[in-house]
Amino acid sequence: MMRFINYKNTSLFTDLYELTMAQVYFEKGIGKTAVFNFFIRPTNKRNYFLFSGLEFLIDYLLNLRFTKEDIEFLRSTGKFKEDFLKYLENFRFTGNLYSVDEGQIVFADEPIVQVEAPILQAQIIETFLVNTLQISILVGTKALRCYSVAKDKMLIEFGMRRAHGVDAGIIAARSSYIGGFAGTSNVVAGKMFGIPIYGTMAHSFVMAHEKEEEAFWNFASVYPENTIFLIDTYDTVEGVKNAIKVAKKKGVKIKGVRIDSGDLLTLSRKVREILDANGFRDSIIFASGGINEYKIKELVENNAPIDGFGVGTELVTSADLPYLDCAYKLVEYDGKPKMKLGYKKITMPYKKQLFRIFKNGKILKDVISHFDDVVENGVKMLKLYIKDGELIENTPSLQEIRQKALTNFKTLPDIFKSLTQHKTLSPEISQRLSKSTEELESLLKAL
Amino acid sequence: MMRFINYKNTSLFTDLYELTMAQVYFEKGIGKTAVFNFFIRPTNKRNYFLFSGLEFLIDYLLNLRFTKEDIEFLRSTGKFKEDFLKYLENFRFTGNLYSVDEGQIVFADEPIVQVEAPILQAQIIETFLVNTLQISILVGTKALRCYSVAKDKMLIEFGMRRAHGVDAGIIAARSSYIGGFAGTSNVVAGKMFGIPIYGTMAHSFVMAHEKEEEAFWNFASVYPENTIFLIDTYDTVEGVKNAIKVAKKKGVKIKGVRIDSGDLLTLSRKVREILDANGFRDSIIFASGGINEYKIKELVENNAPIDGFGVGTELVTSADLPYLDCAYKLVEYDGKPKMKLGYKKITMPYKKQLFRIFKNGKILKDVISHFDDVVENGVKMLKLYIKDGELIENTPSLQEIRQKALTNFKTLPDIFKSLTQHKTLSPEISQRLSKSTEELESLLKAL
Repeated sequence: MMRFINYKNTSLFTDLYELTMAQVYFEKGIGKTAVFNFFIRPTNKRNYFLFSGLEFLIDYLLNLRFTKEDIEFLRSTGKFKEDFLKYLENFRFTGNLYSVDEGQIVFADEPIVQVEAPILQAQIIETFLVNTLQISILVGTKALRCYSVAKDKMLIEFGMRRAHGVDAGIIAARSSYIGGFAGTSNVVAGKMFGIPIYGTMAHSFVMAHEKEEEAFWNFASVYPENTIFLIDTYDTVEGVKNAIKVAKKKGVKIKGVRIDSGDLLTLSRKVREILDANGFRDSIIFASGGINEYKIKELVENNAPIDGFGVGTELVTSADLPYLDCAYKLVEYDGKPKMKLGYKKITMPYKKQLFRIFKNGKILKDVISHFDDVVENGVKMLKLYIKDGELIENTPSLQEIRQKALTNFKTLPDIFKSLTQHKTLSPEISQRLSKSTEELESLLKAL
Repeated sequence: MMRFINYKNTSLFTDLYELTMAQVYFEKGIGKTAVFNFFIRPTNKRNYFLFSGLEFLIDYLLNLRFTKEDIEFLRSTGKFKEDFLKYLENFRFTGNLYSVDEGQIVFADEPIVQVEAPILQAQIIETFLVNTLQISILVGTKALRCYSVAKDKMLIEFGMRRAHGVDAGIIAARSSYIGGFAGTSNVVAGKMFGIPIYGTMAHSFVMAHEKEEEAFWNFASVYPENTIFLIDTYDTVEGVKNAIKVAKKKGVKIKGVRIDSGDLLTLSRKVREILDANGFRDSIIFASGGINEYKIKELVENNAPIDGFGVGTELVTSADLPYLDCAYKLVEYDGKPKMKLGYKKITMPYKKQLFRIFKNGKILKDVISHFDDVVENGVKMLKLYIKDGELIENTPSLQEIRQKALTNFKTLPDIFKSLTQHKTLSPEISQRLSKSTEELESLLKAL
């Protein structure tokens, strides 16, 4: 029986072909510098993306090692030769990592992350890179969509139990915080990242007592200032009345009530009325249960008296778009441009820079160019974070990333903020890059 | 900058409310035995589910501890009192775990896992339990759907990079192996579980060379017996011709070719023709790129000459059903039945047993009963795995679980195997359980 999964060691979190290709590169002396681009292919389900996950990638790149145990396992597969295994013993990532900042708004087809390293290294890191960036961007983007329609409502990430594994639960808490959430129910994410943690009570807690009122009293007497009563275990209206009874009789404060099921608009109105009629105007109403950006929008537009939403499953699984069609593609090798011509999946060659041009504080356009090009009034979006294997750019705190994200979001033109209409910004390709791409394509097709 | 995520310590992988409720239970002396059921609510997207993930849950329960660091963090939140924190220092799971075997076919509304423990313990484990079982079942079920239509085709799990985090990637490899896959590209899953690992080559490998033929030769000369040539980087037909050139000129074996894009039916036929015409009748054709159970079915039904499928993104994210509406609900406390009456989400009270009745080797019906009931000819599905905190049932090897799953799958009546028609088996409720549930419901509604 194995010990509980230990992810400290990530070198083998890779597809086998990354390592078999690496062995070929090693044996054939194919060791020149490669440039890879990570980008997201267009989807009509998202107009924009919130970039996050860079910190995980940096951490991985700085700490990537093959332990003796890893190498022993690789040896046992019979697929690797001794000189290559020997080489892996001292493997380090010694390349460059360019990336857009975490908390930045990006669009499909843009080079968001660019790796420049000896091809063997650039290849081995592919699986983790795509994995960690995809889930981070997926949840961050969904969170920002919720934030975009929530106005002043407080949003809390509640999805841990329905996330795809432990890792996804933790990443979801971080990404949704960046995307405008106020906190999470996830305790370990609170510990790891300093994200504010929140919680109320469960139906089982109420049910473990003979009477709802008794359950409420027990909780409130331990947390007299901080109790949010879950009122829908049996009957929502009776529930709020029981909360009020407890508060009146014993002088407990009702910080708020939570409704987790039913018609949230109707119920929240009834509950607000009852709370107000009993003098609990300051008590908040918190709603949860199947919440997503569409439901938030509808409830907010109907002026539901709801002060906060717990958003779980649909957020952490990005249920309406559970994966991004994202890719990590070779664009240059040994100074020569590279492109794939296969069916419908042409990639754009050359090491690149991404520029953003603003007008009146809003994004006017994005321009993709050759790396060394200058685009007038363009802000360089790809920053060199890791140089020759060393971190050279400070990574901001999570609080700072969150602030940046919300500031960046203000630069997004409103036409792109629709939840249902597909309107997005397609990055421009600079004239020079466009021309050299066409030339290469003709050349390859003539081969 | 934090070190790369270390999951060894899982006690804080929980929702805050589990711990605040625990403090209330502790302080109020609410410490009697509770029984919780884990079950999946009906969905028209799945007719059956493949149960897996139990090994992760067992490992968690046996090793659950609060470290000093965890407790220090909890103290720092200001939400917990010293006597409760002191109690957590010696926290152990001392309860019972009943579960269906891994590799068993189950249906919606069935109690699949049943926990019986002091309520505080049974509550704290909820978040991890639901998290790890959900993703395991989700991917295993999707895998089995692929297997159900793949006939003799080899299925390899290729989805690691698109899984939701590291954890999901590893669980996906394990669950899909149980569900009939032959292996995975995921190296660390190979190391952890002994799952056979497979790989071919990437487009970037081909592109890193001046000519496709040169790329093929370099790979084949390092793996002369084992190369699967990726032939669609530039042009699939030219690609297979280049593979043949390499094999003919240098005497290399073409184990197979992989097609990752385009019209797989047309392309696989062309490629098969070319391989056969050149004497490579034993070389296999492997297809990947956007594969799911529906595409496998279509290709198999059209007799596409494809020998194996790499199934990635859609499998590991269970893209057409990215989450299960699953729940972990209190059904008994201190010997008394418990049920929730809230809107549309009534739960069935009482500690239970699940029986399966077979006829001519096929599942005839499932019956849910009181735990101590006997159902004639019924096979008990819930086994006691952990008793008083100790593992008392041997957990089979992954190979055995996989074998059992495929044997169990043969007992599933064909009418439930449709990918598109929603026909499922609804478990029967035993007469006695039915009656006592009705009685409790009336009683609660009268309160």
